[in-house]
Amino acid sequence: MTEKFSKLKSISESQIIEKYLKKLNFNKKESFGFNNDASYLNSFNNNKNIVTNDSIVEDVDFFKNDSAQSIAQKIVTSNLSDLSAMGSKPYCYTLNLCMPKYITINWLESFSDYLIKLQKKYNFFLLGGDLSKSKQLMISSTFFGHAEYKNIISRNKVSIDDDIWVTGSLGESYVGLKILKNKVSINIDIKIKNYFLKKYYYPTPCMIGYKIAKYCNSGIDISDGFIGDLKKIVGTRFGAKIKLNSLPTSRFMKIILKKNLLRFDEIINCGDDYELILIVPNKNSNKIQEIAHKNKIKISKIGKIIKTNGIFSEYGKSLVPKNYFKHFA
Amino acid sequence: MTEKFSKLKSISESQIIEKYLKKLNFNKKESFGFNNDASYLNSFNNNKNIVTNDSIVEDVDFFKNDSAQSIAQKIVTSNLSDLSAMGSKPYCYTLNLCMPKYITINWLESFSDYLIKLQKKYNFFLLGGDLSKSKQLMISSTFFGHAEYKNIISRNKVSIDDDIWVTGSLGESYVGLKILKNKVSINIDIKIKNYFLKKYYYPTPCMIGYKIAKYCNSGIDISDGFIGDLKKIVGTRFGAKIKLNSLPTSRFMKIILKKNLLRFDEIINCGDDYELILIVPNKNSNKIQEIAHKNKIKISKIGKIIKTNGIFSEYGKSLVPKNYFKHFA
Repeated sequence: MTEKFSKLKSISESQIIEKYLKKLNFNKKESFGFNNDASYLNSFNNNKNIVTNDSIVEDVDFFKNDSAQSIAQKIVTSNLSDLSAMGSKPYCYTLNLCMPKYITINWLESFSDYLIKLQKKYNFFLLGGDLSKSKQLMISSTFFGHAEYKNIISRNKVSIDDDIWVTGSLGESYVGLKILKNKVSINIDIKIKNYFLKKYYYPTPCMIGYKIAKYCNSGIDISDGFIGDLKKIVGTRFGAKIKLNSLPTSRFMKIILKKNLLRFDEIINCGDDYELILIVPNKNSNKIQEIAHKNKIKISKIGKIIKTNGIFSEYGKSLVPKNYFKHFA
Repeated sequence: MTEKFSKLKSISESQIIEKYLKKLNFNKKESFGFNNDASYLNSFNNNKNIVTNDSIVEDVDFFKNDSAQSIAQKIVTSNLSDLSAMGSKPYCYTLNLCMPKYITINWLESFSDYLIKLQKKYNFFLLGGDLSKSKQLMISSTFFGHAEYKNIISRNKVSIDDDIWVTGSLGESYVGLKILKNKVSINIDIKIKNYFLKKYYYPTPCMIGYKIAKYCNSGIDISDGFIGDLKKIVGTRFGAKIKLNSLPTSRFMKIILKKNLLRFDEIINCGDDYELILIVPNKNSNKIQEIAHKNKIKISKIGKIIKTNGIFSEYGKSLVPKNYFKHFA
């Protein structure tokens, strides 16, 4: 057993690949058994290969003692969410692992076993990758999806009077992080606490994008916060009017809000929701609801695209924070 | 001017993208002006999209005070070299930048300006990317190329009596690193010193792969050392016999060797050469030389594939180091 906890210096790069990464490839021809300098992509019918990438870094997107499973969930969710937001379905991914000395063989085993679970759930495989050593754990990943060119969901393709829809519930992962940092702790039931912690450690992507794409004009996934991401969709030419009380919050979130443990504007300006904002012509309302229902996904109509630039409540109050500026450092 | 040296916290992520990364995109349709969650890839005629990726990490692949240009050169060369080794030509790339606090606006400007230079030289563009903060500088990149499926250069497709060719000269970058670390310093002319330092800081890929692919049975680029990489090609079913004195070394390397500042076996077991080892049926010798000559690339016939597993000198001595085992940490 101690052997399993031994540090990686007792194992060669090719052994790591052989033992922990090759099983993630599902023997796909595209990768030449990980024996070549590169891999290739197939494309099916008229589908385009869609590409997205995301990195997660220790102390920024997760913490040193977080489980390998949670870290695997985060790198997969942030990328799958982008694929879904483009109207594409998952195909494969590459993995660049930069690992510090504290990573053990046991960690690699948990990490790779959990990746397999996610790969089977969402149907994608590991195409290739690269290993490095580093001082912090950093994982960088490029994900590939398939989408019909005409169905790719773009931003900025909105029309006045289009409906604005959002999937799931807002702010869940953010409350988890607040609880973790002990900023929301007074008077919450342990069940509620654990509910939100799970949302923080195991955020899930909303994979409805591919199925719903052809009924949408535009879409985005919420990674920087509902208001900020909606702003990216409407651009500078349009605006949005939001019915604040139609914004979806979970049963437990309602308790948090009622206890004044959190302000509502925090929920609509926090990140990592991984829900989709979809801009849909009104005539497609039924179709959208039907697809969501069939896929057991909660979806809420929350507002409309308007001519006036900005994001407003139904009473005309601007919802964009005054100092909206995302600093890099 | 001081403004230019200011830290990145005075600039937002979207400003970094707008000012330093968008210019690398050459306005390509595939990226939707960097406004979407993802990009798409085109494929041309019967070509496949080839994918490779590599990360470079501070203190491992470069040092903190290395110039932004040298770092840009390294991330591009390691990836382009893989594309060439697969017989593909460059198409585009994604860039994941994990940047520590010491990175300045001036650094980003140098880095991106140098990338443009390389992009124009080798004809590829930036498809997309991701920015994070971190404690060490880490750059992870996925490169895409195009190759006809039937011309993809694979490993392990060798036949007995095939010729082994190698491009350029061996061990150049390694000597640069040794000089940098002051391990090779006695009695070398400053001109020679600078020659090798340049090879270390600015390694260049040998981009002949796409042109020569259909005349080769197999190929690889030298990133872990000539012997180790040749071993990957011959696998466990074949072996190679090498004429040691036909291994290509530069005029300056001959001086280094003559002064006994380096052992010959170091040169054939060091990494980052980014030259190509090509396995070619004997009947294609003239064609290979003709293409190399036309592209002003030095190419040397250095041995043959044999039945006995292992890598041997012409006198039958094994050239594989006894403790050949690449540790991860």
